[in-house]
Amino acid sequence: MRKIKSKYDAFRQQTRIIVHGTTTSAGQIFDLVLLGVILLSLFLVIMETVEGFNAKYHSQLVFLEWIITIFFTIEYILRVISIDKPIKYIFSFYGIIDLIATLPMYLSIFFPGTSILTAVRALRLLRLFKIINHPHFTSQSVQLKEAVNASRGKIIVFIYFVLICTIIIGSIMYIIEGKESGFTSIPTSIYWTIVTLTTVGYGDISPQTPLGQIFASLVMILGYGIIAVPTGIITAEFAKRNIHTNSDTFKTTCTSCSTVIQNKEALFCHHCGNKLNDSISS
Amino acid sequence: MRKIKSKYDAFRQQTRIIVHGTTTSAGQIFDLVLLGVILLSLFLVIMETVEGFNAKYHSQLVFLEWIITIFFTIEYILRVISIDKPIKYIFSFYGIIDLIATLPMYLSIFFPGTSILTAVRALRLLRLFKIINHPHFTSQSVQLKEAVNASRGKIIVFIYFVLICTIIIGSIMYIIEGKESGFTSIPTSIYWTIVTLTTVGYGDISPQTPLGQIFASLVMILGYGIIAVPTGIITAEFAKRNIHTNSDTFKTTCTSCSTVIQNKEALFCHHCGNKLNDSISS
Amino acid sequence: MRKIKSKYDAFRQQTRIIVHGTTTSAGQIFDLVLLGVILLSLFLVIMETVEGFNAKYHSQLVFLEWIITIFFTIEYILRVISIDKPIKYIFSFYGIIDLIATLPMYLSIFFPGTSILTAVRALRLLRLFKIINHPHFTSQSVQLKEAVNASRGKIIVFIYFVLICTIIIGSIMYIIEGKESGFTSIPTSIYWTIVTLTTVGYGDISPQTPLGQIFASLVMILGYGIIAVPTGIITAEFAKRNIHTNSDTFKTTCTSCSTVIQNKEALFCHHCGNKLNDSISS
Amino acid sequence: MRKIKSKYDAFRQQTRIIVHGTTTSAGQIFDLVLLGVILLSLFLVIMETVEGFNAKYHSQLVFLEWIITIFFTIEYILRVISIDKPIKYIFSFYGIIDLIATLPMYLSIFFPGTSILTAVRALRLLRLFKIINHPHFTSQSVQLKEAVNASRGKIIVFIYFVLICTIIIGSIMYIIEGKESGFTSIPTSIYWTIVTLTTVGYGDISPQTPLGQIFASLVMILGYGIIAVPTGIITAEFAKRNIHTNSDTFKTTCTSCSTVIQNKEALFCHHCGNKLNDSISS
Repeated sequence: MRKIKSKYDAFRQQTRIIVHGTTTSAGQIFDLVLLGVILLSLFLVIMETVEGFNAKYHSQLVFLEWIITIFFTIEYILRVISIDKPIKYIFSFYGIIDLIATLPMYLSIFFPGTSILTAVRALRLLRLFKIINHPHFTSQSVQLKEAVNASRGKIIVFIYFVLICTIIIGSIMYIIEGKESGFTSIPTSIYWTIVTLTTVGYGDISPQTPLGQIFASLVMILGYGIIAVPTGIITAEFAKRNIHTNSDTFKTTCTSCSTVIQNKEALFCHHCGNKLNDSISS
Repeated sequence: MRKIKSKYDAFRQQTRIIVHGTTTSAGQIFDLVLLGVILLSLFLVIMETVEGFNAKYHSQLVFLEWIITIFFTIEYILRVISIDKPIKYIFSFYGIIDLIATLPMYLSIFFPGTSILTAVRALRLLRLFKIINHPHFTSQSVQLKEAVNASRGKIIVFIYFVLICTIIIGSIMYIIEGKESGFTSIPTSIYWTIVTLTTVGYGDISPQTPLGQIFASLVMILGYGIIAVPTGIITAEFAKRNIHTNSDTFKTTCTSCSTVIQNKEALFCHHCGNKLNDSISS
Repeated sequence: MRKIKSKYDAFRQQTRIIVHGTTTSAGQIFDLVLLGVILLSLFLVIMETVEGFNAKYHSQLVFLEWIITIFFTIEYILRVISIDKPIKYIFSFYGIIDLIATLPMYLSIFFPGTSILTAVRALRLLRLFKIINHPHFTSQSVQLKEAVNASRGKIIVFIYFVLICTIIIGSIMYIIEGKESGFTSIPTSIYWTIVTLTTVGYGDISPQTPLGQIFASLVMILGYGIIAVPTGIITAEFAKRNIHTNSDTFKTTCTSCSTVIQNKEALFCHHCGNKLNDSISS
Repeated sequence: MRKIKSKYDAFRQQTRIIVHGTTTSAGQIFDLVLLGVILLSLFLVIMETVEGFNAKYHSQLVFLEWIITIFFTIEYILRVISIDKPIKYIFSFYGIIDLIATLPMYLSIFFPGTSILTAVRALRLLRLFKIINHPHFTSQSVQLKEAVNASRGKIIVFIYFVLICTIIIGSIMYIIEGKESGFTSIPTSIYWTIVTLTTVGYGDISPQTPLGQIFASLVMILGYGIIAVPTGIITAEFAKRNIHTNSDTFKTTCTSCSTVIQNKEALFCHHCGNKLNDSISS
């Protein structure tokens, strides 16, 4: 009995290293295979909605999707049983995604058509950020995340303000243009306003009356300024981070006069002319 | 008589705290309810223009809108009578909006169809900025406002210049394309120019002749540069503010006169000349 | 004879002050009237192309346009004869525009239809920058101009590179999509590429085949990065200018220890505690 | 025999100077002629696809294209035989482009219709960056290239993240809108998502249901923030480079070892320790 226990423990440890780990070569190969399976799975879900393709290969697609679902299910079970704190994993961001990624196929047995929800597996691709350990790549991601997070407060205030604008602009356009030009209701008008202010401009609805076109022109010029604001907020955050990153690159101190030296190529102190001792550079 | 007076005064004071105040919990609850009612009111106005919805619930919509209008009217009267300087409030930004928000429904008795103007109530949502007292949120709003204000001068100069461009580009396109392609008049051509320069691009009007397409391509490439300018102006303002915010991390207080000192190298207080005690710096 | 000469000289001097000057109130009033006439003139040219309006008021429009043309002609003659170096004025930027602004109506006598070229008068609106003497406004214009000029070199390099891209992308799309989808020739394909890369997106031509849509998606994602470049170039110039403007605002030197003091509110030197002498601040 | 050899060597050297060189006037003239021929060649390929033009001038176009192809072939052979390390040139970036530029016409003998691939000659226009030796122009190009390169890491991370978003948003829109509104499959929905997030907005596919329009509005507002990120990344790089360029205004040279010194406060050369003579600083 004890033997079985210790065997199981060894199996758990091995599994943990392969499934959860990213440092051993076995772990890295597993992660790469996993990413490949996720990509294949997404390809299958996406192609299932293309009529011509689905008509031809429907049974193969369904078969492969079930194979992958079973693979994901086993993987999920292994992740849960091999980790020391399964509860923490189950309710973590990646844990929830891993679970959700397996469910739609099982659901589709009872509710046909829900298999399309497997597209949620795209979120599993975020795992790439966990896999790659290259310090350069990680620092880039972190900087990106930090800059976006630091901008969040200002951007929420800004979007709140923009939404108030869209209600008012939408109502005015509804009054000016009326139902003939496609501005059939205020919600539709607000939709048009958002399409215009973000400079997307589908053209499915566009002002037809002279007054509507004049007012729309004003809205677009306003949109000019408005689109600059989130860009400005995020750019300023990147700029701040960049300047600070840069100025800290090289520093050493002269042993004779304690002057700080930031010139990498310096052989002598620029203040006292003392020959620099390379060993204390950092 | 005096009793009534003092009772009225107590009522006024209580009302002021609830209606105008944002610090007591009663005041905060009132503000939240008010925001909710404003949002409900906007939802009603907006849905009234959706034909299917209006046909079904017309009488309920009108009934609720009247209830809200009466609520806003009472609220406005309470605001005016409870404040110490009613004239100042009446002619303030929020005072005018509060009044305008009540009028359209009364107007609609005499002029049917004007009830749609109640969409102006969206402006009341700006009151949120008054309600929230959280210092982080407020500082974000202030920074946003300051950066946009500081950019105003340059952006006005820039828009004036762009408008001159649109007249000239519009006229040239009118000459090149002519009436067959939808460029029926110079105003329409100018409208097309603004739609193009702002990169909205509805496609309701687009050049059909080869020469028109070549010229339009030049306009779009010009628009490339042009859209960068307001972004550049606003971003630079954010960046300036951000850098300065950042350099303010060092702070200490003079023990003699309580002046805040942000200069890291200061040995003496710049206000009272007192020698600084390093131990309290943070 | 001499009397006539001196009278003519006095007239020339007076005219120069009014027509060319921007400092006397007479000169300022003349400039404002001129701007008004330019705006009226533009309004007339633009409205002449609106069919309904022109049909109704054709004779009045033509009459007013002739009045304005004669006014501009007299103004141009006065500018030439009143200035000391007429040749320099005639061949200056504003001189050429002033002349061109008068010509289209005279041309229209011989070549009907050329009266539309009077839209070139929009360029005379640039004169506003000459008129306004307010230092804040002028400094904003100068900063705007400097930043755009400083960016020119990089932006030309960038546009050259983008044009090479558009030829290649346009050719590929022509091969992929072919004539059925509206990509009738490589020039049309290049036009589509520019419409897409600049994010204008009319939709008059859009890819129909799956391969075309995939490639177009790649082009749009590339356009994402590409549109960021001119914005980055111009923003960096604004940011540089802003930072330098800001740091030069206040400076004084301690008379006792020669420390530079940039804190406006300092009463004592932060280095030696010496009381600052206000008289030497700059 | 030796005479022929030395004659051939002289020919090779002369050729190298003209064909590869950019410093002698003969080399510069050759490069300008080459650029002209490339532009002519591109014009021919492009115009061949314009039906009306091709019908009229087909034989002339083909004749000129063959002349240019032979010219490019001779040029390529001369480049290979005149250079000292032909292998290195053949496999260099420009070497490969030069070869590819000659091939399509020869291919078109066997596979009619491939002559259109000569559009790849547009890449030869990049040679301009090699030709121009003006230091200002070169430094602009280098700065542009450096800033874009430095941004690459962050932009790749960002695009990876955006692609995950497009899969999920595309699937949701496919479920909401269904086949009637043009969202015929998930790949088409993803195409629509990219068209929307990049603010291109063709309008060939656009949401028709109220729920689809609400969700699309959210996507556009998200796109607002998203388009700001690459702009922010690239702008920050430009800003960093600009600030550093600016701080390099001070420059002096060590009289002993000719090292360039940019540190204003340097009293001794950081390379040889020689005491700096202030009089030669600029």
